[in-house]
Amino acid sequence: MSTLSPLQKARYAYQPKLPAVLQGDIKDITCELGEPTQAISDQEELKSLFANTYGNPIARFVKGNNPKAGEKINIGVILSGGQAPGGHNVIAGIFDGLKKSNPESKLYGFLGGPAGIMKDNLVEIDDELMDAYRNTGGFDIIGSGRDKLETEAQFEQSLATCKKHDISGVVIIGGDDSNTNGAVLAEYFAAKDAGITVIGCPKTIDGDLKNEYIETSFGFDTATKTYSELIGNIEKDANSAKKYWHFIKLMGRSASHIGLECALQTQPNICIISEEVEAKKMTLKQVVDQVADVIVKRAEKGLNFGVALIPEGLIEFIPEVGALISELNDKMAHHADYFSSLKTLEDQQEWLNQQLSKDSSYVFSALPRSIQEQLLMDRDPHGNVQVSRIETEKLLIEMVGHKLAQMKLEKKFNGSFNALAHFFGYEGRCAFPSNFDADYCYTLGYSAFILMSHKLTGYISNVASLQKPADQWVPGGCPLTMMMNMERRHGSMKPVIKKALVELDGAPFKAFAAQRDQWAIETSFTFPGAIQYYGPDEVCNQPTETLKHEKA
Amino acid sequence: MSTLSPLQKARYAYQPKLPAVLQGDIKDITCELGEPTQAISDQEELKSLFANTYGNPIARFVKGNNPKAGEKINIGVILSGGQAPGGHNVIAGIFDGLKKSNPESKLYGFLGGPAGIMKDNLVEIDDELMDAYRNTGGFDIIGSGRDKLETEAQFEQSLATCKKHDISGVVIIGGDDSNTNGAVLAEYFAAKDAGITVIGCPKTIDGDLKNEYIETSFGFDTATKTYSELIGNIEKDANSAKKYWHFIKLMGRSASHIGLECALQTQPNICIISEEVEAKKMTLKQVVDQVADVIVKRAEKGLNFGVALIPEGLIEFIPEVGALISELNDKMAHHADYFSSLKTLEDQQEWLNQQLSKDSSYVFSALPRSIQEQLLMDRDPHGNVQVSRIETEKLLIEMVGHKLAQMKLEKKFNGSFNALAHFFGYEGRCAFPSNFDADYCYTLGYSAFILMSHKLTGYISNVASLQKPADQWVPGGCPLTMMMNMERRHGSMKPVIKKALVELDGAPFKAFAAQRDQWAIETSFTFPGAIQYYGPDEVCNQPTETLKHEKA
Repeated sequence: MSTLSPLQKARYAYQPKLPAVLQGDIKDITCELGEPTQAISDQEELKSLFANTYGNPIARFVKGNNPKAGEKINIGVILSGGQAPGGHNVIAGIFDGLKKSNPESKLYGFLGGPAGIMKDNLVEIDDELMDAYRNTGGFDIIGSGRDKLETEAQFEQSLATCKKHDISGVVIIGGDDSNTNGAVLAEYFAAKDAGITVIGCPKTIDGDLKNEYIETSFGFDTATKTYSELIGNIEKDANSAKKYWHFIKLMGRSASHIGLECALQTQPNICIISEEVEAKKMTLKQVVDQVADVIVKRAEKGLNFGVALIPEGLIEFIPEVGALISELNDKMAHHADYFSSLKTLEDQQEWLNQQLSKDSSYVFSALPRSIQEQLLMDRDPHGNVQVSRIETEKLLIEMVGHKLAQMKLEKKFNGSFNALAHFFGYEGRCAFPSNFDADYCYTLGYSAFILMSHKLTGYISNVASLQKPADQWVPGGCPLTMMMNMERRHGSMKPVIKKALVELDGAPFKAFAAQRDQWAIETSFTFPGAIQYYGPDEVCNQPTETLKHEKA
Repeated sequence: MSTLSPLQKARYAYQPKLPAVLQGDIKDITCELGEPTQAISDQEELKSLFANTYGNPIARFVKGNNPKAGEKINIGVILSGGQAPGGHNVIAGIFDGLKKSNPESKLYGFLGGPAGIMKDNLVEIDDELMDAYRNTGGFDIIGSGRDKLETEAQFEQSLATCKKHDISGVVIIGGDDSNTNGAVLAEYFAAKDAGITVIGCPKTIDGDLKNEYIETSFGFDTATKTYSELIGNIEKDANSAKKYWHFIKLMGRSASHIGLECALQTQPNICIISEEVEAKKMTLKQVVDQVADVIVKRAEKGLNFGVALIPEGLIEFIPEVGALISELNDKMAHHADYFSSLKTLEDQQEWLNQQLSKDSSYVFSALPRSIQEQLLMDRDPHGNVQVSRIETEKLLIEMVGHKLAQMKLEKKFNGSFNALAHFFGYEGRCAFPSNFDADYCYTLGYSAFILMSHKLTGYISNVASLQKPADQWVPGGCPLTMMMNMERRHGSMKPVIKKALVELDGAPFKAFAAQRDQWAIETSFTFPGAIQYYGPDEVCNQPTETLKHEKA
C-alpha cells in the first residue's frame, strides 16, 4: 500500500483561498453579462461554425441573487492531455461548489481523458475519493488521455453517455486544443438542444494558453517553480565547483514561456528563446556562435562555468532546421520502402544528398552524427522525425564544443569547456500544486460550476487580477469563440484557440532582454529553492515573474 | 547583480537549533573524556603511523568549566571535495562559537579546497561574508577543490601558511578521504609540536562516511529529500499517464545509500542495491532479467508503467562487468598505441576478442553498441574507462527492452514497454540545507570549535542521537584513528577511514527488502514533495528514513 508522506497529509488540510465574491452562499452569487463579443479574426466563418454559441458576452461574478442555485444537476469532468499541477483542485472546486449548492447533485469523473465520455467509462466522485486528492499533484484521480473529441460520431457517443447518467454539464480541463474541442462540443450540444453545457478550464504547464482574458494557464506556476528550484541548485553547484557548463533543456515544444520564466527566476548566463531565434531568422550556426561567444567572454574573466537554458522546441524554430525536418519527412514518406532498405548511415546520407535541397543538405551535413542518426532512425509510426526525441542540449554541447576547439587552435579561446546535459520536464508536471496553483485551480473549478449553474455554455472559466492576493481575484467566464481564429491544420482550415507564443515586445521578454547581457558575463545567479507551502507570505504566496511583469 | 530569492532572504533569518549542552556560555561547556580507543583493525600499524595521535579517548560535551574558553585563537577552514548541503552552516557554527568565545579571534577560509592551505590562498571570514551564506546551499563562500593533502611537502607548506597567519586550528570539512588526510595532517603537526590542531567534519551526500559513532554524514538528508521530491513527482506522472517506465539513475558511485533512502521515501517498483548485486554475485543478465520480471508481472495486471531506481555505481558492482572494466583498463594501458591505431569499433572489437578473457569477451559482446563505444572511446587521461560517464540507466533500458521484445515473440509478455531515462545528482548537492542539515551542520561546526578550544586534535566532530529533536542531540568528538584500518590504495597499504557500504543485514535494507516485492507489483508510490523549511514539525523537521530505521 502507498504510504502518505507527511507533506501529503498536511496538504489535505489546506483550504484553498477563494476570491471574496465566491465566498458565502452560492445563491448570493450571480453573473453580470457584458456586451456581445467577437472572435479575434475570421469572425464570419466562426459565426457560421458556432451558430448557437458564437459571440456570447463575458460573464463576471457579482454579489446578487441566483435563483437557479440549489438545483440538482449532475456534472461530468474530463482531464485532457499532459499533467499539470492543480488538476485535482479544479475538480475539488467543482465538487465543493456543486455539493454546497445541492448535496444531491453528483460529480462524475470520465476515466482516462476524453475516451471516458466517448466510451461511457466513468466514476462517481464522492467525498472519500475527492478527499484523497485535494491539493495533490498529478491527474491520477481519474486519469488523463490524449484522445481527441472532434468528430460527429464522438459527439454522439458523448451525448449518449451524458443522457444515460443525466449529466447536464461537462467540464473539460485541458490546453488550447482540448478547449477548442470543448467549444465545438458545446456548439454540438446547443445545436441539438441537448440541455448540456460545456465549460473549459485553461490547463498547461507550457503557459501558451493565455490571452487578454486568461492571464495564465494553471500548472505553469508550480512547474516553473520546480524547474527553477533545480536550475538554482545547479547554478549553486556550478558556482561552487567552477568547472562545468550545465546545458539544461526545459519541456515545452511550442513556446518558450517556461524558459523565459525560469530565466527570470534564476538569472542564468544563457537562455535561448525560440521565438526570438525564429523572428531573427537565425541559423543553427548563429545560435551556436552566440552560445560560444558567452563562454569565451566568461573564460576571459576566468569563469569556465555557467548555466544555459534551452527550450525543448528550439530546433523547430530555427528556420533552416525546420525546413530540413519537413523535407526529411516529405522525402522519407515518399520513398519509405527504398529508404528503409538502406542500412548504414553512410548509404542514407548519400541518398539524402541527392534528394534534399542544397540548403537542407548543407544543414544536415553540419549536424553531429548522433543527431543525424536520431533524425533518420528514430521515427514515429507515420515515418516522421520525432522532434521531441532530439537531444537539443547535447546537439548544442557538441557543436559549441567543436566551435570552441577551433577557436582554441586560432588562439581565440584559452579557457576550458566541460559541459553536462540535463532535461527537466516530468519532474515538474505532477508536483504538489503551489499555493498559487492550488488556489487558482480551486477558483477555476468553483467558477466553472457557477457558470454552469447559470446555464452558460461554450465558456472558459477564468480569473483576473491574479497578481493580487486571492481574495481580490476577479472570477468569471469568457466565451471560447472570442479566443478563436481559423488556422490550417492537417491540410484544412479549422477553428482553433490561438496559441500564445512569447511576445518579443511583451514585458517579461523585455525585462529578460534588458538584463541578459549582464547575466551572461557576470555570475548573477538567483537561487529560488524548493516550493514552499508554508512560511512567510513572500515565500509561499507569490505568482510567477511572468505574471508580475505582465500585470505590472 | 544576483537577486536574492524570497526563500534566501527568509533563510538568512533562520537560527539553527543547537543541542541543550551547547546552549549558553562557552566557558560553561567542558569535555568529558572516555577510555583510550582502538582502531577497528590493524591496530599496531596504525599505532606506529599515528604515534602522537593514536588511541585518544572519545570526547563528550557536558556542562562544566572550560578555563581555556575566551582565549584568542585563529582557525582556518577547508571545504574539500564535492558539494553537500550544509557546508556553509558548518562554517557558521565554527564562526559563531569562535566569536562568542572571543570576538578578537579570527576565522580564515582557505580558498578552493585543500589547495588554499598549501598555496596560502585564504580570506578572512567576517560578519558580512558569513551572513551572506547562512543556511544556504553550495560551497561558494570559499569554494571547494579536490586536491589531496597527503605528502610531506604539502604538510610543510600547510604549516608555513598556518604559522604566517597565526592559525592554531584547521577544520577540514570533507568525506572519508579528506578526513583520513586530516588525521595524517594532525599527526604531522603533533609530531612537529606545531601547536596546531586539526578537526574533521563528516561531509558527503553519498552517506558512506558513517559508523558506530558518526550516525550520518551531512548533506545526505537534503540531497536524498531533493531526489525523493523529484522521484515522487515522476511517480505521480507515471501513475497519471500510465504509459512510461522511468529509469532513474542516482548519484553516488561507491555505495547505494542514496538509492536505498530514496526507495524508502518513495516506494518505487524497482530499486537496485549495488551491494546486494555484488553479494549475490549477480551477472548483468540476471540484473536485466530481474528488472524485466517486474515489468512483465505489472503488465499482466495491465500496469505498463513504473519507476526504477539505479545507483550510479551499479556497473562496477556487477562482478563480471567489474572484471571486464579492469581487463579493459589493463589491456589498453599495455597496448595503448596499437589500440588507438584502430579506428572503427569493429576493428577494436576484433582485437579485444583476442585479448580479453573468454568471460570478459562474452560480457563485452552482450553490451549494447552505445555502451561498447563508451567503454572504448570515452577514456580518461590515464586511458581508463570513465565509469561515471557510462549511462547505466540507458544500458538497462536497452537490454531490458531487448529481453522484453524476445519474450513478446515467445508470448511471455504482452504489455508495452516505453522507457524514459533520468539522472539526478547535481540537482541535490547544493539545495538549501533542510532544517535537519542546517541544525546538524551548525552543531558540527560549533562542536569543532569546542573541541579546538580544548586543544584536541585528530578528532572528527560528531553528534549522536540525531533521530531525536535537536535539543536532545549529544555532541562531541571521536578520534579519527578509531575509524581507520589499512587498505590497499594504488598498490600500497594506506591508513584509511573505512567506507560504509549498505549493510544487507542492516535495518534500512531489511525494511526495504521486506516491502519491495509488494512495491514491485502493486503501485505503492509515496510522494514526499519539495523540502519544507516551515510548517508543521512532521513536515519540516524529520530525519531520513535510514536514520530512523538505524536508530529505531
